[in-house]
Amino acid sequence: VHKLPLEYLFNPKSIAIAGVSDDLTKHSPGRSFLESLIDFGYQGKIYPVSPSGSEVMGLTIYPSVQHIPGRVDYVISAIPAPHTPQLVRDCAAKGVKAIQFFTAGFSEIENKAGGKLEAEILSLARENGMRIIGPNCMGIYCPGTGLTFALHVNEQGLPRQSGPLGFFSQSGGNSAYCIKEAAARGVYFSKVISYGNASDLNESDFLEYLTHDPETGIIAAYLEGVKDGPRFRKVLKAAAGQKPVVIYKAGNTESGTRATASHTSAMAGSDRIWEGFLRQAGAIQVYSIEELVDVVLLFSRDVSPKGCNAAVIGMGGGASVQAADDCSKAGLILPSLPSGIRRKLKDITQIEAGAIFSNPIDCWQYEKLPNILKTVAQLDEIDLIIMHMPFDCWPLIDNRIFIESYIDTIIHMKDIIPKPMVVILHSHSSQASIKIAAGVRVKLLEAGFPIFSSFSNAARAIHRMLGRAAV
Amino acid sequence: VHKLPLEYLFNPKSIAIAGVSDDLTKHSPGRSFLESLIDFGYQGKIYPVSPSGSEVMGLTIYPSVQHIPGRVDYVISAIPAPHTPQLVRDCAAKGVKAIQFFTAGFSEIENKAGGKLEAEILSLARENGMRIIGPNCMGIYCPGTGLTFALHVNEQGLPRQSGPLGFFSQSGGNSAYCIKEAAARGVYFSKVISYGNASDLNESDFLEYLTHDPETGIIAAYLEGVKDGPRFRKVLKAAAGQKPVVIYKAGNTESGTRATASHTSAMAGSDRIWEGFLRQAGAIQVYSIEELVDVVLLFSRDVSPKGCNAAVIGMGGGASVQAADDCSKAGLILPSLPSGIRRKLKDITQIEAGAIFSNPIDCWQYEKLPNILKTVAQLDEIDLIIMHMPFDCWPLIDNRIFIESYIDTIIHMKDIIPKPMVVILHSHSSQASIKIAAGVRVKLLEAGFPIFSSFSNAARAIHRMLGRAAV
Repeated sequence: VHKLPLEYLFNPKSIAIAGVSDDLTKHSPGRSFLESLIDFGYQGKIYPVSPSGSEVMGLTIYPSVQHIPGRVDYVISAIPAPHTPQLVRDCAAKGVKAIQFFTAGFSEIENKAGGKLEAEILSLARENGMRIIGPNCMGIYCPGTGLTFALHVNEQGLPRQSGPLGFFSQSGGNSAYCIKEAAARGVYFSKVISYGNASDLNESDFLEYLTHDPETGIIAAYLEGVKDGPRFRKVLKAAAGQKPVVIYKAGNTESGTRATASHTSAMAGSDRIWEGFLRQAGAIQVYSIEELVDVVLLFSRDVSPKGCNAAVIGMGGGASVQAADDCSKAGLILPSLPSGIRRKLKDITQIEAGAIFSNPIDCWQYEKLPNILKTVAQLDEIDLIIMHMPFDCWPLIDNRIFIESYIDTIIHMKDIIPKPMVVILHSHSSQASIKIAAGVRVKLLEAGFPIFSSFSNAARAIHRMLGRAAV
Repeated sequence: VHKLPLEYLFNPKSIAIAGVSDDLTKHSPGRSFLESLIDFGYQGKIYPVSPSGSEVMGLTIYPSVQHIPGRVDYVISAIPAPHTPQLVRDCAAKGVKAIQFFTAGFSEIENKAGGKLEAEILSLARENGMRIIGPNCMGIYCPGTGLTFALHVNEQGLPRQSGPLGFFSQSGGNSAYCIKEAAARGVYFSKVISYGNASDLNESDFLEYLTHDPETGIIAAYLEGVKDGPRFRKVLKAAAGQKPVVIYKAGNTESGTRATASHTSAMAGSDRIWEGFLRQAGAIQVYSIEELVDVVLLFSRDVSPKGCNAAVIGMGGGASVQAADDCSKAGLILPSLPSGIRRKLKDITQIEAGAIFSNPIDCWQYEKLPNILKTVAQLDEIDLIIMHMPFDCWPLIDNRIFIESYIDTIIHMKDIIPKPMVVILHSHSSQASIKIAAGVRVKLLEAGFPIFSSFSNAARAIHRMLGRAAV
């Protein structure tokens, strides 16, 4: 079996964590890594390290990496920056393959000493054939092998379920956010790499790995900058030729650029340049983590309409007017239905007053919905169906029995109609509305529906997916 | 005391509802109106009307309006369209002042008979000095006098609390949605008019009324079209000269235009034309109900920054980079802070590694927040402060005690610092995250904060508010 070059990063047999305090009254990121790995079910050996020695959670704390008795594959650094050069020397002596630096305070700070220190640990690592992830990052999340970020003990951990999405990100916060948001919408991950300042291993390395990783079917990334433009272009083009690649490149405005410099020391570059660059490479550009998840969701559910002609079925009125405007603005087309079809739809619903049949199509009788869906889905001019559920916009039918019957009908029809279906489900800001929407969401998620929180989001994601350059 | 021309619409002493079925097994919109008015606490007389006679909820059902013993100020029609001409004749004979037609099936349907019927009831009403609201609408919501829309019995009613916002809307669904969304964000209403096809009383009438209504401090509207352009221009200019006026004009795309025609028979017109029209009149244009509430929220909380220079204080990392990008794209400026101030902020937090101080400013220690806020708020180059609470983006501190202390600190500082403050609070789609955000929301709402669900929304609303043409 051919092994991918960076495979060892995702499957270490033993991990040392430098900077694990045994003082339980003190906040210790190193101990958070330890607790998180144990809680997440990591099956390899874990070695806490701290000059103080002692014990924590029944494990011996070793005074240095060199004192650890067994082999050490991977080291997580959660010690103060000034002590990192010594840690790298200790790791070199121990034969460690890779170090992830949660430790921050390097090139991202406004002080030349930070950049110098980063150069020093990099050169020490290179001299000794070790790879660095970071510094200033959360490292690796890989549910298949039990690797996870450090999370606060009180917090719900990251999902244990694996899935097709490979994600690499310069931001640890955005990594955690993306994982949680995607999971809540039914999308899970093969591997996630939070790699911060990218001093050694960078975006091109991770992208290349995920391109060849058989567990990864869709690739996404949060970038603040790129270390080696020409290499990234080449790697990106190769990746996009094999798998969908969705990129959120942040820091493209003046304020954003300034923020990236202080965050990961990245040189950001302008929006215009990035747009051309990503389009030419065949990648899909998005502008937020939410948008990234929106697009990935379509790929993960195999929603692949032939074109951007949609039929919108909803509950009518102003909500349908706004739906039509939002779809059009985001680049979808709602073809006007032929008068014969409009007549048929009216015959099915037996309603004409106050209802729209020209697309959007109003249908607030769930018992009529199957016929409406079949009639619309068979039309050649329709590529996909968007179900609109503005339960809180419609004052007369906002009740539990109606909503449940409506949802059951849609779920029943999902595998019957021959066109892809997506669902728009939103709530207003009241607790009651949020609760209703949450219940509906659970049922639709279980049935495998791609759910979007607004027409704008869904339409934009579909348009982005369809606009992917042929490669 | 000078009485406003349409004042009687909002303070009827008696209401007849035509189309109230006594058959409780059948859906009856007329009965929903009846139940909703009683439940909402309307104190005047209510007379159910139906040819069947009988009783409902302890009230006599009269076979026609003419059979009602007392005076009838206002009539709600929930009968089928073909019977409405006779209802109008009965109302004329009874001396009724105004009829609201919930009844649909008039000019909005694809059938010339609908338009003819609408013309007939309008001409009957005019001959007899009566005014019409609608047809095809929900009518009036006025918590001060106990008027409300028909809502399904199982549903939570609309808020009983009054407030400064006057709203008129061609869509009943969007009216209910706007009321609920605004209330959930702490904004309440003086009067809401859902007026559907606008056959008689139209947008200009309601706008004129709200301009002079002392209970209305802010005016907002959902429009699909305008009946009399020149009059509306004049009325709008006069309104915007006295109060903030926020307009969501829908149906500006081709699909949207088609939808408005089937919804309220409105002639929609293009986006470009409406933009110029509204700007010249001094109104603020928005593109969704959510956006409308965003802008109104700023006015209702007296958030009136001198300019669009904002300081963003958040929890850092990728979330701050995205915040900077989003603010810039929506037209806000995040001025770079002078190096002396950056130094001061670093001294306060005693943190430099991995943190941003160039604006956005990272501060995840709530005990340092008061000093940070004071330092930033005193700067001349800062017009307002945006607090970012991406609690679910930040893996290490996503815990209850931290969040509560952070919120308490912000609430404490609200009246101390001399610049307006808005809050960005969002959750990802998981139930756990939604629950945390909901708890935070309640506390911040009670403290009077304007809360936005994203930087884009907040920045756009602020930019729109500031861009209001001088009048």
